[in-house]
Amino acid sequence: MFSGAQLSLYPMSDDFVGIITGALSALDPHRDHLRIETDDLSTLIVGPPEILFSAMRDLFVAAARSGTHCVLSATVSRGCPGEPDDPICTPAEGTLPVAPLDERIAKAVAAVKAAPETGQPVACQVSLYPLGVNQHMDEIEGCIAFLKASGVFDRPKNFCTKLSGDAGAVFATLQQAFTRFGAAASHVALDVTVSAHSPTRA
Amino acid sequence: MFSGAQLSLYPMSDDFVGIITGALSALDPHRDHLRIETDDLSTLIVGPPEILFSAMRDLFVAAARSGTHCVLSATVSRGCPGEPDDPICTPAEGTLPVAPLDERIAKAVAAVKAAPETGQPVACQVSLYPLGVNQHMDEIEGCIAFLKASGVFDRPKNFCTKLSGDAGAVFATLQQAFTRFGAAASHVALDVTVSAHSPTRA
Repeated sequence: MFSGAQLSLYPMSDDFVGIITGALSALDPHRDHLRIETDDLSTLIVGPPEILFSAMRDLFVAAARSGTHCVLSATVSRGCPGEPDDPICTPAEGTLPVAPLDERIAKAVAAVKAAPETGQPVACQVSLYPLGVNQHMDEIEGCIAFLKASGVFDRPKNFCTKLSGDAGAVFATLQQAFTRFGAAASHVALDVTVSAHSPTRA
Repeated sequence: MFSGAQLSLYPMSDDFVGIITGALSALDPHRDHLRIETDDLSTLIVGPPEILFSAMRDLFVAAARSGTHCVLSATVSRGCPGEPDDPICTPAEGTLPVAPLDERIAKAVAAVKAAPETGQPVACQVSLYPLGVNQHMDEIEGCIAFLKASGVFDRPKNFCTKLSGDAGAVFATLQQAFTRFGAAASHVALDVTVSAHSPTRA
């Protein structure tokens, strides 16, 4: 199993470098569980799914504390056949999709209810891509049913679903979408955009 | 057939609103061929694949002319079973993937060579998701073979391929990746990040 994320943080500010470097210490509690590489386009974090989403949440909330309009954009992937197995990615027991859809949806909703609150409201849009699965629309529709029941559902959009709420519940919802849908051993990608302090926000 | 993109433009500047609104007129030549809707997270453009990529290129190049570090992030999709057919999306004849892989790669490379130059250098990373296809890795590997021959290949990354070069050739490469790979009638998504003026750029 190989899992990780290519993530980018975009603070809409002349001081974007300062805001990004100021937020990086939020990754410190997670560094032992992650392999991290940065270039001019994105930062790769490789590790177990549950750590990936906590790390992205903490990084984004730290940047958003600046009050600046900030966006996190990430491609999260597990089980890509082109990537080698990596022991650092071993997921926590019982977190991969092996039960019937109804049961997985109920467990995912319960996990979001138990998520810690951060005090940072965010808007988000997410697309799930279960690859190499003939019945990919069943898994996508199961995932959308979960998103609707997550407590942070906002509205459907073309090609994605919009969420809004506290960053704690929203990143927990993303984690559940990523780990509970698509076949356990299959290639799953999740494309996500999280935004805070947009001036367009109604 | 339904095709479109959810795109977001991120200028890393206190004047991000001015840069975005200043770039919007670059979409004017394409507006007759597109349906456009905007919210606080992204702008949806719906239309034929060849127009989607020209519109994104013109918008991004207009924003990058500001000299500010700017990023365009987009999810482009065609053939999603959850979307209705839309006559506005009808692709130009001969642009969808119906030939053997080798032939498609050769046509894609020729199309990139014929792309107009914009004078704006960009870095880019792209992931292609051919959904509902059992042999999805064949199409992904065919697409990667094309990217390597495109003239704007930079390097492979985890979960994506990095490109760099003139915005004209890079957006032409993205269009060819999107239209020539994955089955003609299938659901294909492409996740793309394009960046200009990054201070991290070597």
